[in-house]
Amino acid sequence: MTIGRKTTPSIGIIGFGAFGRLIARHLAPHSPLVVSDPCQSIPQESPDRVVVSDARGAARCDIVILAVPVDRMSAAIAELKPHLRPGAVVIDVGSVKIEPARIMLAELPENVEIIGTHPLFGPQSASRGIAGLKMALCPIRGKSWRRIAAFLRQKLKLDVILTTPDAHDRDMAMVQGLTHLVAKILVRMEPMPGRMTTRSFELLMQATEMVRHDAPGVFHAIERANPHARAVRERFFAHAQEITRELERGHEAQRPAAREIEAEIA
Amino acid sequence: MTIGRKTTPSIGIIGFGAFGRLIARHLAPHSPLVVSDPCQSIPQESPDRVVVSDARGAARCDIVILAVPVDRMSAAIAELKPHLRPGAVVIDVGSVKIEPARIMLAELPENVEIIGTHPLFGPQSASRGIAGLKMALCPIRGKSWRRIAAFLRQKLKLDVILTTPDAHDRDMAMVQGLTHLVAKILVRMEPMPGRMTTRSFELLMQATEMVRHDAPGVFHAIERANPHARAVRERFFAHAQEITRELERGHEAQRPAAREIEAEIA
Repeated sequence: MTIGRKTTPSIGIIGFGAFGRLIARHLAPHSPLVVSDPCQSIPQESPDRVVVSDARGAARCDIVILAVPVDRMSAAIAELKPHLRPGAVVIDVGSVKIEPARIMLAELPENVEIIGTHPLFGPQSASRGIAGLKMALCPIRGKSWRRIAAFLRQKLKLDVILTTPDAHDRDMAMVQGLTHLVAKILVRMEPMPGRMTTRSFELLMQATEMVRHDAPGVFHAIERANPHARAVRERFFAHAQEITRELERGHEAQRPAAREIEAEIA
Repeated sequence: MTIGRKTTPSIGIIGFGAFGRLIARHLAPHSPLVVSDPCQSIPQESPDRVVVSDARGAARCDIVILAVPVDRMSAAIAELKPHLRPGAVVIDVGSVKIEPARIMLAELPENVEIIGTHPLFGPQSASRGIAGLKMALCPIRGKSWRRIAAFLRQKLKLDVILTTPDAHDRDMAMVQGLTHLVAKILVRMEPMPGRMTTRSFELLMQATEMVRHDAPGVFHAIERANPHARAVRERFFAHAQEITRELERGHEAQRPAAREIEAEIA
């Protein structure tokens, strides 16, 4: 890719889990990649133009993508910090944005640019390509985000949504907080009926199926690392209790009518 | 329709709400219909072969479909009872099956047959036709259910699921109980984010959208008239509370780690 410059910038990916692999597959046709992961073994069948390296090799790229869980971000930054080039662009891809933005601003050297992103898809929703899928993008420091956003829109055909870490986390506390909370509850209620089902129930099960295999860290990031998630959970439970009370009251109110029916039959 | 007999049986429909109209549209090509509703005005643009009548006219048909809310079933039966023909088949279409079966067995004359059905679709899921859609069928009294089930399968191309009122209500306490409960909670939490969304959240919203416009009686039938619904709600809330407790414990457990990060930054 040129993203407005004469030369193609190199891209380093720190973290080669499910999401790091997905990014690599879509970036490899556009740019040379250097991937690094201290924990995962990187498969031999990686795409062409992908060089496997230690954190140092990935950190020396023009663009460095942090594809690690939020709770491992500080450790990853500590490792790559000594090797970052002045003017490099560091990008995270976490499910929350306030906390990663705070960590990156506090812990990265002042001479690197910072962008927070959240691709609103995972390996499952991206299985038929990523064109048209949504990605939230938060400019944190520097101006490279304009070139990066243009690349994401024009080359990867992503639907890039410019936002701030706080606005992102507020919306995601609803979007991901509710989806994962409901899915977590439903998975624990299994087995579910499989034959006698309605269309709306099938949609609910499909939503559950899409997030149930997410790594446990994803649920914890969504529910704990998002400062707005707790208030959303509390509203969810308050409404649930309110509905229960209404149904209980209904039971009370219905009793005389039920007795009348019994009397009628007798 | 012949459903195994020499002559085409007439069909009476008591109750001409959203669901009664849907039934009429799909049965009209197969059989003469007589519809009756004490509350709703029946539109002039009804399909051909549909005769509008009082309860008496509908009650004198070979097959009588009760398309009224569960809590109005006793009143409807009281009205049509004097006019039912010996050997008539009375069919209900309610969202629960134990209570309608009990009412119909107790209140209908012994010389009529009884079938409980629950078409697992509504006007929205049937908007592109009903072929392939699911219908639960519970034989209650008599043997006509075999001919009726064959008609539903062969002529209407429905996926007929033979079951009992108790097995039906057990599964539906999960299927409909959970869908409607979750949808009810989510509707009360509106407004929802519309732009920054994930695929799984969109599925959750679609499920909600499909049931949000259901008549209030549907929610009450599902949650209150189904004797298994309360236990499902209680399990839902118990799991929700368990997950909350786990998340709170996680908050506690994470605090020292967060302090370490702060110390590192300072």
